[in-house]
Amino acid sequence: MSVVAPAGFVAAGGAVGIKAEGVADLAFIGSDDGSPIAAAAVFTANLAAAAPVRVSKAHLSATAGRAAGVVLTSGNANAATGAAGVVAAERLCQLAAHEVGARQSEILICQTGLIGIPFPLAQVEPAVAAVIASRSAEHAAGEQAAQAMLTTDTFHKEALVEAKGFSVGAMAKGAAMLAPNMATMLAVLTTDAACDGATLHELLTAAVGPSFNSLIVDGATSTNDTVIVLASGRAGPVDPRQLGAAMREACGTLAAQMAEDAEGATKVVHVKVVGARTDDEAHRAARQVAGSLLVKCSFNGEDPYWGRVVSELGCAGVAFDPDLVEIAYGGVVVAANGVGVDHDARAVAEHMAGRHIELRCDLGLGAGSGVVLTCDLGYGYLDENRTTS
Amino acid sequence: MSVVAPAGFVAAGGAVGIKAEGVADLAFIGSDDGSPIAAAAVFTANLAAAAPVRVSKAHLSATAGRAAGVVLTSGNANAATGAAGVVAAERLCQLAAHEVGARQSEILICQTGLIGIPFPLAQVEPAVAAVIASRSAEHAAGEQAAQAMLTTDTFHKEALVEAKGFSVGAMAKGAAMLAPNMATMLAVLTTDAACDGATLHELLTAAVGPSFNSLIVDGATSTNDTVIVLASGRAGPVDPRQLGAAMREACGTLAAQMAEDAEGATKVVHVKVVGARTDDEAHRAARQVAGSLLVKCSFNGEDPYWGRVVSELGCAGVAFDPDLVEIAYGGVVVAANGVGVDHDARAVAEHMAGRHIELRCDLGLGAGSGVVLTCDLGYGYLDENRTTS
Repeated sequence: MSVVAPAGFVAAGGAVGIKAEGVADLAFIGSDDGSPIAAAAVFTANLAAAAPVRVSKAHLSATAGRAAGVVLTSGNANAATGAAGVVAAERLCQLAAHEVGARQSEILICQTGLIGIPFPLAQVEPAVAAVIASRSAEHAAGEQAAQAMLTTDTFHKEALVEAKGFSVGAMAKGAAMLAPNMATMLAVLTTDAACDGATLHELLTAAVGPSFNSLIVDGATSTNDTVIVLASGRAGPVDPRQLGAAMREACGTLAAQMAEDAEGATKVVHVKVVGARTDDEAHRAARQVAGSLLVKCSFNGEDPYWGRVVSELGCAGVAFDPDLVEIAYGGVVVAANGVGVDHDARAVAEHMAGRHIELRCDLGLGAGSGVVLTCDLGYGYLDENRTTS
Repeated sequence: MSVVAPAGFVAAGGAVGIKAEGVADLAFIGSDDGSPIAAAAVFTANLAAAAPVRVSKAHLSATAGRAAGVVLTSGNANAATGAAGVVAAERLCQLAAHEVGARQSEILICQTGLIGIPFPLAQVEPAVAAVIASRSAEHAAGEQAAQAMLTTDTFHKEALVEAKGFSVGAMAKGAAMLAPNMATMLAVLTTDAACDGATLHELLTAAVGPSFNSLIVDGATSTNDTVIVLASGRAGPVDPRQLGAAMREACGTLAAQMAEDAEGATKVVHVKVVGARTDDEAHRAARQVAGSLLVKCSFNGEDPYWGRVVSELGCAGVAFDPDLVEIAYGGVVVAANGVGVDHDARAVAEHMAGRHIELRCDLGLGAGSGVVLTCDLGYGYLDENRTTS
């Protein structure tokens, strides 16, 4: 159950020839009658933003936060493709708009795949209408859409949060910063709650912070990262706090699935920093630790090398006193007051041998805390990212 | 020829039992008569600075920029070792001071190796005096010192710059950010030029920027990084600009040797950014590209994946227009005005198959330029850093 679970949505997924051999590579999700509904999006901050990001931003701005649907393609990021890339993205929107009876500016677009390869518009164009024409509110259609947006993902990612009187459905493509050769994380949320575009944007921004923005694999900020939410309004007005909570939960579920699917990863790691001066400093410190190649290598080797963790905390750009820090793996304290302490090494080894690792760093300075989800750096990451071929 | 080449210096290197099986692990370099001479140092900015960094800072401050010598040990970083670590570092200084007839505060100390392991002072203490007693101005003694400071380095690193009327000798240990499991880059420069401590500090800071600080392997800032310069004054006063130039050259030579010796690396890469608004922005953009796991993976795979380079430039935090950027590998332009261009793919493949890769990014915005030296991310890096055992 996913993006078509909330009332008022249809979805489709199929092959248009971007990927080889008929693999599904185009998805659509939109209002069931083609009418524009409330929409909001959060885009990558990368200044080399891809054509679909530029186009979606322009469309959302032109419609003041309304959209009839979203086209998603996979296999080619349509990034670093210049003016021709914008033309291609606009044309895909136009084809979708024509099929569902909307205006071109009422269609948003997300694309993912390799960067710097001209988008094969001529080859793809003839097949677009038929895929979108197959849209329906059936569960299977939602799943096909979730499938068609994938690149190196090993499973499709869906979420459904049933709240009081409304629901939030979601799907994502989690190469994200996880197998970032195939640029991007993309996610689309749907809800039958009624909500205006401005409030939706506020709620979405708040939901992205503790979920997708707290997921770090290699620190890359892709050219294509996009999260979109559409609200059909069929369930009527709801408490924005409840809607926000449901959106946060949906995003959190998808982020966890992305971490599980990190290519080349053998470990999923929660890096928790407590005792920082502020939550912001805790989060920054957790990001520094989670982003460290050395720390990530040590997760892969199941080595509780806490000295390296302390070193990363020391250069995270936040308040830090090496004589106060405490480090624990799986709840077992291995260092306190900045120096190693006797501990149950077998318990630590057993914890690190599992697929999920919990690393907790207490800075001993205040009440700030923050968590970042990451994975290890293993041979598989190199296998995936050494070459594009 | 190295640290003992300039007049007025003696050096020594030998085993004191930090490393296993009699491998050399203690070095000394100092004035030939044990008297204090002008000294300056640049230390790591890491807030988890190791005991030797804290001790050396305190000593340099107490003597207002004078030192009789430097003790260096390898195999244990004496970092995250608390108060006991400071006691151990001070004791090593005391032993050296006693041997050469100086005050304890006139001895500086550098240590490198694993973080978070108590320094084995009791085991090491009895052997220190004998190693330092073997000091001499012979070439072989300088080489033994350069050898004794190494950890995972595969060769020792020395430099000698002969200037008009004076010379600068230097030695370094280049695990640096290169095989950073074994914390640290350490370097000691010597000169027979006469120069006060304050001027020396100014010249050293200027020399470190374009050399060691432009070398990036995984962005780690170690707990122990230290660069020290000692000036015997035997050659009399010199033009500070000439001394600064000679120090820059010595540091640059050592940095290049470190890049060549990057563990697990198969490529040495010059990332040059031109056309930035300012030199500082160019340098920041070059660091972002050089620090990217994805870009480093692509060097390893000999894959000219310029789209990923553009993506990194787009999130470097500097002025950037994707429609103006030009990317070249080995002088062959593969992308211009933000999109791929026809090029000699065989020439690029041949260039990338070599050990040295030149990546040039022209932002097309101004006259700012900057170069960063880095290496690829390969399987060897993982082999080296997965575990400490």
